[in-house]
Amino acid sequence: MKGIILTDENPDKIAVKEVDLGDLGADEVKVRIHAAALNHRDQWCREGRYPNIKNGIILGSDGAGEVVEVGAEVSPIWLGKQVIMNAAMGWGTYQKAQSSDFKIMGMPTHGTLAQYVHIKADRLMIKPDHLNMEEAAGLPLAGVTAYRALFYHGQVSPGDKVLITGFGGGVSQLAAQIALKAGAVVFVTSGIKKKLQVAYQYGVEEGFIYHDPDWADQAKKASGGFDLIVDSAVGDTLDTLIPLLIPGGKLVVYGATLGNPSKVDMRRVFWNQITIQGTTMGSDEDFKKMVEYVNVHKITPIIDSVYPLADAVQAFDKMKEGTQMGKIIIRLL
Amino acid sequence: MKGIILTDENPDKIAVKEVDLGDLGADEVKVRIHAAALNHRDQWCREGRYPNIKNGIILGSDGAGEVVEVGAEVSPIWLGKQVIMNAAMGWGTYQKAQSSDFKIMGMPTHGTLAQYVHIKADRLMIKPDHLNMEEAAGLPLAGVTAYRALFYHGQVSPGDKVLITGFGGGVSQLAAQIALKAGAVVFVTSGIKKKLQVAYQYGVEEGFIYHDPDWADQAKKASGGFDLIVDSAVGDTLDTLIPLLIPGGKLVVYGATLGNPSKVDMRRVFWNQITIQGTTMGSDEDFKKMVEYVNVHKITPIIDSVYPLADAVQAFDKMKEGTQMGKIIIRLL
Repeated sequence: MKGIILTDENPDKIAVKEVDLGDLGADEVKVRIHAAALNHRDQWCREGRYPNIKNGIILGSDGAGEVVEVGAEVSPIWLGKQVIMNAAMGWGTYQKAQSSDFKIMGMPTHGTLAQYVHIKADRLMIKPDHLNMEEAAGLPLAGVTAYRALFYHGQVSPGDKVLITGFGGGVSQLAAQIALKAGAVVFVTSGIKKKLQVAYQYGVEEGFIYHDPDWADQAKKASGGFDLIVDSAVGDTLDTLIPLLIPGGKLVVYGATLGNPSKVDMRRVFWNQITIQGTTMGSDEDFKKMVEYVNVHKITPIIDSVYPLADAVQAFDKMKEGTQMGKIIIRLL
Repeated sequence: MKGIILTDENPDKIAVKEVDLGDLGADEVKVRIHAAALNHRDQWCREGRYPNIKNGIILGSDGAGEVVEVGAEVSPIWLGKQVIMNAAMGWGTYQKAQSSDFKIMGMPTHGTLAQYVHIKADRLMIKPDHLNMEEAAGLPLAGVTAYRALFYHGQVSPGDKVLITGFGGGVSQLAAQIALKAGAVVFVTSGIKKKLQVAYQYGVEEGFIYHDPDWADQAKKASGGFDLIVDSAVGDTLDTLIPLLIPGGKLVVYGATLGNPSKVDMRRVFWNQITIQGTTMGSDEDFKKMVEYVNVHKITPIIDSVYPLADAVQAFDKMKEGTQMGKIIIRLL
C-alpha cells in the first residue's frame, strides 16, 4: 500500500512510496483511510525541525476512514465502522499534562497519510454523522487542541469575551466555533480581510487585521478587554496581548510560531493577576469530550482544499506557505 | 501625633512629623499603633517609584494596635480590642482580581507608621493571640500575599513539592511556613547560607544558594521537579525556574524585583503545560482565611529587627539594603 514518507532521497523531503505495515497487533485495527489532514507538525517534520525524526516513516496524525480488519483482542463490532482517530498515544491519566511516554502517530510511528494505518482500537471514535470524510479528517488534532485550550485551561463561560488569534489555522477556526457554541462573545485576528469575512458568517463579533498598527487599540475598544485569549504566535505580540486582558484574564498559548518574546511586562502580569497558560493537544478525556461537543453542536471543520495522494508535495507546500483558510486534506479513496 | 511622612524637605525623603488626622469618619475607628512593619512598598514610595505619590502622607501598610475610639456607626464592642489591619481597600467581590478602585493604606491615604491611624472598621481583624504586637504587625500584607499565592492561585496540596525563592523577605518566609503546614515538601533559595539554616529549623527540606552557578541542577536533583514555584524576582531567572517545574507545574509571581525577562522558552511553556500566574496581595476573603489559617497553625512572622520611631531612616535604609531576615518593625508604643 502507498503512503507519504519522509525521505532524504529527493529535495522535496517527502515521497509517495509503497510501505509494508507488517502484522496487525492483537490490540490494533486496520483502518482504510478515506481522507487525511495536514498539520503544521507534518510540515515541520519535513523541515527536520524535531529531534528524533526518521526517514521512511509515514507522516500524518489526522485521518478518517473505515475499519477493515481487527486484531485478535479487538471486538469484531468495529469491522466496517467509519471512524476518526486520536493520534495521541500514552498521555496517561494525569489531566494536567501528558506523561513522558506521550507519542503522536505520524512520527515516530507510521501515520495517516497512507491508504491504511494500523492503530490501537482504543484510539478510535465513531465518525460524527454530520461530517463527511474530509471534514472528519480535519477534526482530531485541531479539535482536541482547541477544546482543551478553551475548556480545560480557559474555563470559557457564557458571556466571556474571547480573542482567538490567527483565524485561518484549523485550531483557531475550531476554537472560534467551540467558543461561540459555549456562549462566548468571540473576536478574532487575521492577516487577511477575507478570512475575517468568513469568521463573521460563523457569528464572530468583530475581527482585526493584525498588520494594522492600531489593531490592539481597536480590539480593546471593541471588547473592553478580554477574559480569555487563545494564541499560538507569541513572539513579541505577547506584550501586545497581555494588556488586552482584563484583570484576572487568561492567555492560553498552544504554540509559538513567531518564536520567544523578547519582552514581557511582568509588573502588568502580577498586578493584573494575569495567567499565561501553556497547552498542547489534549488528554483522552479531552478528546472524548471534544467529539461529544462536536456531535451535539454540529461543529464542522473548515476545509481549505483537497488534494489527491499524488499531489502530496503541493499540499505540503501550501501548508508551508501558511495562507490556507482551514484544513488541507489529502484524499486517499 | 507623630508619623513618618514622605517629604521633599530633606535628602532622606522621609521625616517624623506631627500630623493631624482630622475627624474620625462614622465608619472608622481610631487605632493606637503599638508596632508597624515596613514593606518594600514603603521604601519604593520613598524612592518615588510609584505614580501619584504625595508628600505629607504617612507611609506604612502594616500595623497592630488597640482600638481607642470608634466612629458613630461602629459598634463600641471594638473599643479596647487588640487588632491587626487589612491595608487593602476596595478590592471588591471579584475573587480573580482587585477592582479599579483598589487602594492600599499608606499611600495615597495615611498609613500605619504613626502613633494613630483612622481606618474603616471593616478592615480590622482581632490580633491572633499567639502573636505579640511586633509579630502581628508583620503579618497582614506579607501573610495575605503568601496565602493567596499558595492557595487561591497555587492550590497547594499535601505532598506537593514547592520552591519558594528568596527566603529572607516576609512573604517568602510566611509562604514557606504556610506551605509546610499545608503538608507540602518545601524548598527555598537564598543568597545567604545563614538564612537557609533558619529555613531548616522550620522544616524546609532543602535550600539552595542562588549564587551557585549550578543551584538549579541541585534543585532539580533534590526535588525531581516542582509542582509549584513562588517567586518575586523574575528577570532572567524566569528561564531558569520554568525548567524546574514538572509538566503541568505552576509558577506564581508576586513581584519582579529583577525586572522583566529578556527570554522565555515558550516551547517549554506550552509543551509542558506550564502556568505562569501573576498575583498581588489578596481579596478580603483571602485575608480572612489567612488570619484563620495563622491562628489554627500558630504561624509566626519572623522579625528581623525593631526600631524606635526616631530611627525611621535607619529602618528604611535596612529595607533598601535588602539583607534583612524577616520583617523590619517600627515600635510606636
